Amino acid sequence: MTTAAKGLEGVVIGTTAISRVDGANGRLIYRGYEIAELAGKATYEEVCHLLWAGHLPSRQELDALDKKMRAQRAISAPVLAALRALPSTTHPMDAVRTGASMVGAALPIDGTPTQDQAIALTARFATLVAAFHRLRHGKEPVAPREDLSHAANYLYMLTGEPPEDRHVKSLDAYLVMLADHGMNASTFTARVIASTGSDLASCVVGGVGALKGPLHGGAPALVLDMLDAIGTPENIKPWIDHALDEHDKLMGFGHRVYKTTDPRAELLREMARQASDPEFYALAHQTEDYALEELHRRKPDQRLYTNVEFYSASVLHSVGLPRDLFPPTFAISRVAGWTAHVLEQVVGNRLMRPESDYSGPTGLTYAPVDQRA
Amino acid sequence: MTTAAKGLEGVVIGTTAISRVDGANGRLIYRGYEIAELAGKATYEEVCHLLWAGHLPSRQELDALDKKMRAQRAISAPVLAALRALPSTTHPMDAVRTGASMVGAALPIDGTPTQDQAIALTARFATLVAAFHRLRHGKEPVAPREDLSHAANYLYMLTGEPPEDRHVKSLDAYLVMLADHGMNASTFTARVIASTGSDLASCVVGGVGALKGPLHGGAPALVLDMLDAIGTPENIKPWIDHALDEHDKLMGFGHRVYKTTDPRAELLREMARQASDPEFYALAHQTEDYALEELHRRKPDQRLYTNVEFYSASVLHSVGLPRDLFPPTFAISRVAGWTAHVLEQVVGNRLMRPESDYSGPTGLTYAPVDQRA
Repeated sequence: MTTAAKGLEGVVIGTTAISRVDGANGRLIYRGYEIAELAGKATYEEVCHLLWAGHLPSRQELDALDKKMRAQRAISAPVLAALRALPSTTHPMDAVRTGASMVGAALPIDGTPTQDQAIALTARFATLVAAFHRLRHGKEPVAPREDLSHAANYLYMLTGEPPEDRHVKSLDAYLVMLADHGMNASTFTARVIASTGSDLASCVVGGVGALKGPLHGGAPALVLDMLDAIGTPENIKPWIDHALDEHDKLMGFGHRVYKTTDPRAELLREMARQASDPEFYALAHQTEDYALEELHRRKPDQRLYTNVEFYSASVLHSVGLPRDLFPPTFAISRVAGWTAHVLEQVVGNRLMRPESDYSGPTGLTYAPVDQRA
Repeated sequence: MTTAAKGLEGVVIGTTAISRVDGANGRLIYRGYEIAELAGKATYEEVCHLLWAGHLPSRQELDALDKKMRAQRAISAPVLAALRALPSTTHPMDAVRTGASMVGAALPIDGTPTQDQAIALTARFATLVAAFHRLRHGKEPVAPREDLSHAANYLYMLTGEPPEDRHVKSLDAYLVMLADHGMNASTFTARVIASTGSDLASCVVGGVGALKGPLHGGAPALVLDMLDAIGTPENIKPWIDHALDEHDKLMGFGHRVYKTTDPRAELLREMARQASDPEFYALAHQTEDYALEELHRRKPDQRLYTNVEFYSASVLHSVGLPRDLFPPTFAISRVAGWTAHVLEQVVGNRLMRPESDYSGPTGLTYAPVDQRA
């Protein structure tokens, strides 16, 4: 028996060829490519192929994948019935979790996970989110369009209008950057479920549940809430000072693995600079600068850096997405990584069944309820 | 960085006061009570209280819990709509996963997990299974009855007939015995999801997905399939010999943690002896004896023992449950353990975010698709 660090921090639980998070040097690599090599250049569909198949697609492979994904976007009557049954106040991540579970139940997705199943789930994720979003506002879902890319079609299904190119470009780069990230909590969840021999939809549904948590993917909108609360450049210093005096956690800073800048934060900052309203970007950037300076001044030995959430929020905001769709949009991206990891897990799989230390009593004797002290 | 054993075997990932699996000595303890102290004596409801609150309930506590659970059994219109939308061929675990997700979405279950939420989910699990089972056979769901125990009401909702006392007693003992089991894969899944700060329904839905896997809870019916295939006592030896010659895995033997007899297998064997048709029990018992003898003869240094699945199958069969409801019935029991572990996890929580070794390439350069080799 060995005892692992709390939260499995620093515990290597397996080998993966899918992505590498080099926290010491601020690098993220997908199957050999630095994230800066891909973001803004490769499409989300190319990156899906890269994560699933291990290499960027040839023209022929990309056309084949595109054809399959586009054909699989529509959701079936049982899935739509589940989305229609959801109260309009439903948490969007609960809607995605329920819709994805229904996709798995109705297709069905069962047996040993396959790449075709990964395509089937990934293709439908954007449709689930867009359909739920319209239904909760009393609008009918918009059917997917086969002539649009994954990113463009998502925006189209949300509004029913052809999206602006610049929004498609921003969203596509975001989807590329968030698609995988080593052994993060939702990917780990998906792999633990896969290790029991369960099906791919069960793994993905577990991943959605984990991503919902505010310590993982559930908090990006809080960055915007913070920027709204700050409001003006003059208010940055007093607001941040007060928050830190009160020991409030600042949103968008710090990460378990990165001991320097998250490379995605750098890329997203530049995207936000180009895509956001200049006044909004100035507020965000000045807030970032002051927060980092003040965090460092107060805790010189425990340096925090801007994480992926800080500018994710600005970028998704600039694309026109409502705040509570930020976590589901993260899921629309990350489902590619979850499914890639499950496909890897089932090769040479071993059930993930750890141990625990028991800290309770022993040797108690049962007495019927009416004879208990 | 430390590297954990594959499948996290022998890796202690935390402390729990809920249950202890002492694999070396064949003991299972819930909060101080050996499983043999509880099975056949305590009701499932008492054990729920034990797992959640840490002690067996007083009369007043039990009455209060009973009242709450009974009042929470009915499923709401959105949940029923989702179950109605499922194709009749849906895997019952997919139905439970989808139904539980809908329960969480519609109630809603959100925020920091609470014992009342644990009650809300546990109370509804049996209703989900029974309603789906009736719907898939073209029958209307039967509303829960508040005057029946959890076990009795489950059987009642399946058939619409008052259940026999001996069946209720068997099922209740089964529900008690399967309610928790240390850091098994589905419980671990639920705790990983909880560690992100996600909600209790997300944790439970992940647990259902993990329990579906044949390496965890998804295989008990295969024991009956094996006994059917054997058919007669004379066929035991040739059938087992042939299976082992072909290196087929025998169902119902071996467990990661137990290095001796699983105490639940002992208790379930005795229940099966009392409850089963004598001819069926003789076949099961003789199969067990011969399989253990032959497994030991062939691999003297790697001793296997009868696991919980072998006689679970016989007991659930004797109660009249169809085979494909064995895994969902396991889930109806284990949801008490999952929820207890989540309530424990969120106290002093730390995000479970392990590391992985990267085995892929580095330093690749992106080229547009039409310029690729």
